[in-house]
Amino acid sequence: MKVDLSVRGMRDYFPEIYHRLSHIFRAWRETALTYGFEEFDGPVIETLELYKIKSGEEIVNQLYNFTDKGGRELALRPELTPTVARMISKIQNQVSKPIKWFSIPRCMRYEKPQKGRLREFFQFNVDIIGEGEGIADVEVMSVAIDSLRNLGLTERDFVVRINNRNFVSEYFNGLGFDKHKTGPLYKIIDNARKVSREVTSAALDELELSSGQRDAVRDYLSLNNSEDLKKLDSAIEGKESLLNVFSLMEAAGLKNYCEFDPTIVRGLDYYTGIVFELYDRSEKMRAICGGGRYNDLLREFSGVDVPACGFGMGDVVLGEILSAKGLIPAYKKCVDYFIVRVTDNEIDIMLKIAQSLRKRGMKVEFTYRWMPVKKQMAKASRVQAKKALILGVDEIAGGMVVEKDLAAGKEVKIPLNSLLE
Amino acid sequence: MKVDLSVRGMRDYFPEIYHRLSHIFRAWRETALTYGFEEFDGPVIETLELYKIKSGEEIVNQLYNFTDKGGRELALRPELTPTVARMISKIQNQVSKPIKWFSIPRCMRYEKPQKGRLREFFQFNVDIIGEGEGIADVEVMSVAIDSLRNLGLTERDFVVRINNRNFVSEYFNGLGFDKHKTGPLYKIIDNARKVSREVTSAALDELELSSGQRDAVRDYLSLNNSEDLKKLDSAIEGKESLLNVFSLMEAAGLKNYCEFDPTIVRGLDYYTGIVFELYDRSEKMRAICGGGRYNDLLREFSGVDVPACGFGMGDVVLGEILSAKGLIPAYKKCVDYFIVRVTDNEIDIMLKIAQSLRKRGMKVEFTYRWMPVKKQMAKASRVQAKKALILGVDEIAGGMVVEKDLAAGKEVKIPLNSLLE
Repeated sequence: MKVDLSVRGMRDYFPEIYHRLSHIFRAWRETALTYGFEEFDGPVIETLELYKIKSGEEIVNQLYNFTDKGGRELALRPELTPTVARMISKIQNQVSKPIKWFSIPRCMRYEKPQKGRLREFFQFNVDIIGEGEGIADVEVMSVAIDSLRNLGLTERDFVVRINNRNFVSEYFNGLGFDKHKTGPLYKIIDNARKVSREVTSAALDELELSSGQRDAVRDYLSLNNSEDLKKLDSAIEGKESLLNVFSLMEAAGLKNYCEFDPTIVRGLDYYTGIVFELYDRSEKMRAICGGGRYNDLLREFSGVDVPACGFGMGDVVLGEILSAKGLIPAYKKCVDYFIVRVTDNEIDIMLKIAQSLRKRGMKVEFTYRWMPVKKQMAKASRVQAKKALILGVDEIAGGMVVEKDLAAGKEVKIPLNSLLE
Repeated sequence: MKVDLSVRGMRDYFPEIYHRLSHIFRAWRETALTYGFEEFDGPVIETLELYKIKSGEEIVNQLYNFTDKGGRELALRPELTPTVARMISKIQNQVSKPIKWFSIPRCMRYEKPQKGRLREFFQFNVDIIGEGEGIADVEVMSVAIDSLRNLGLTERDFVVRINNRNFVSEYFNGLGFDKHKTGPLYKIIDNARKVSREVTSAALDELELSSGQRDAVRDYLSLNNSEDLKKLDSAIEGKESLLNVFSLMEAAGLKNYCEFDPTIVRGLDYYTGIVFELYDRSEKMRAICGGGRYNDLLREFSGVDVPACGFGMGDVVLGEILSAKGLIPAYKKCVDYFIVRVTDNEIDIMLKIAQSLRKRGMKVEFTYRWMPVKKQMAKASRVQAKKALILGVDEIAGGMVVEKDLAAGKEVKIPLNSLLE
């Protein structure tokens, strides 16, 4: 077969690539567990309807969706939040709150594959459900920060850019913005981080704002940090909640990771309070992570108010950053024992030794076909085995085995019995 | 929302259910690693073509398949072997053989959901690629056995039923079976394990065999164990290879797990040598695991001969068996420290302590909202915390914290400093 049957935007996770994934997963999982989060997952296949509830019809363009053989309209999950909402609605009456869940779901999006974006990816999802703003927001952001610190990244490498959706809407409230202009305005604000002042200015021109509105937007975008926030008119309610979060992050020793950023508004419509994105400080990459508070979303599923806050962190951008910074440990097979047989008559005893050592949790290999001892030793080196066990005819007859430390190059004779149960 | 948007045949892996999965995954993974296998994975989405190569058009009925927005005919993987073949074909010239790979892929099949069978499942896949029959076959079966032993199952619980496809075809060779009758005959043989003699007999009647052929089938089905095998006409070549495998399994100390079973032929067309299935000894369930040698399959992908042997073991049947036998450990959150604050003024110091302990890998929780100490202690019990750290106003002022062992009920005062970095 000459044709490459790989699907565009999909990855083949060969062992070395899988090793990189595992390394990231382990840090994510360990961090979430130290915060007392519980791991869960949902199915990859959901109803198409589930995504329309939250995001409307336009989401369908970015989905892998299809009709199954029973006529059901289905979709492959592009993210986990709708699944979380669906699952929580099943149990939210029966469990004590807050619910603290995390997951590392495999997700698929029908998007143009490009740097940092693939059609299949994994996403660390962390959510606190059934708890309002305050410490819960701080805990969610802390998990995001700590998971990156566990991967070797520091405050010099990344920053959490924080804002609050209530603050944004309260800021512009009373300035008489037409309702249909709010969406485009937020989009311009969100873009202001990525484009020049001129581009932002031209985009604002198109909105045809009053001069008072235009000044308000300019003042808003000039808010640089939480100190600027403090100076603002105290009547803006969301401000206090923002300042509270900064003060709690400082108490947790994470101040240097956090910055107020007026341009963080997040595209998705369902955010209601804090919103945040994590960026590589070099700013060359897409966001590493994004999240926030979504107090209204679960009502659509459960019929009752269930406040919630969470984030998603994909493996693709993060993996590229870690690789670029040399923070992925080298892949090693880590074989404990490589058994070498001098003749092909030692198969039985070799299998017995292998079984016994493996039962003790040791990683044991040997060649499946007999070959000259030199070749077997070369294989032992290739898999970076710590020790070789050499089964010589005379030694075995005398109840002994030669154990060779391959790093030190030293040999000792050990009793065969010590290798058996 | 009143409608349940769950998709038929899919599972929601709530934390307790996920815990069961993780328990199984851990045993699978640890076992494969002790044998020196490397973990890998492929994408969930493959081309439909990939499955047709191996299994022909009829596989499409059991697939989730669809056309993507770019017009590509795609399918969700129902199993991993075609992906393995596709990936191996990319690298088989560059890597030293044998290649020893394992994976725990998420797979989807459009099948009627029923006991032991769901539309989404996980499957432990173990393959040795680039190595012919003999020890490699024994290693593959040993991984399957050991992974179940690591989960607490013993030789009283399950059995590996073994046969060899070459042996079967050589046995019936020379008896003049019409070519078109071989398929149906194998199906009857495969079914003989599950139905009464009368049903088998009636099915054979329909094949309209000669009396000599009929006798041969009867004799074949009366082969009960490897002793019966030994007595057979030695001209049957596959027999020696079967007996060799039994003798190697005995050397590995796994004899009591293995039985010769003439009815194991495996449905899939691509098996070429050893075939085996693992069953619960109570025989009430579907096979726990199935596999065998497939020496010809990779030629279709790579254009060169690459012998291979492997198995797949799903999580569904196995999970049911383990649950029924009480072999899934109880789910516990395992919180190390629950921090209790006597007033709401200790938030800052609480966050500092939490951060510091979590950095040491401890699992730390506290309530996000202040509540009376009694209620906080009740929460600590509910999450089965080992210790409570009680932050009293006077103690904190004196640089101390009360540490309470919740199992023993004992309290000691410890220096606050010992909890900080």
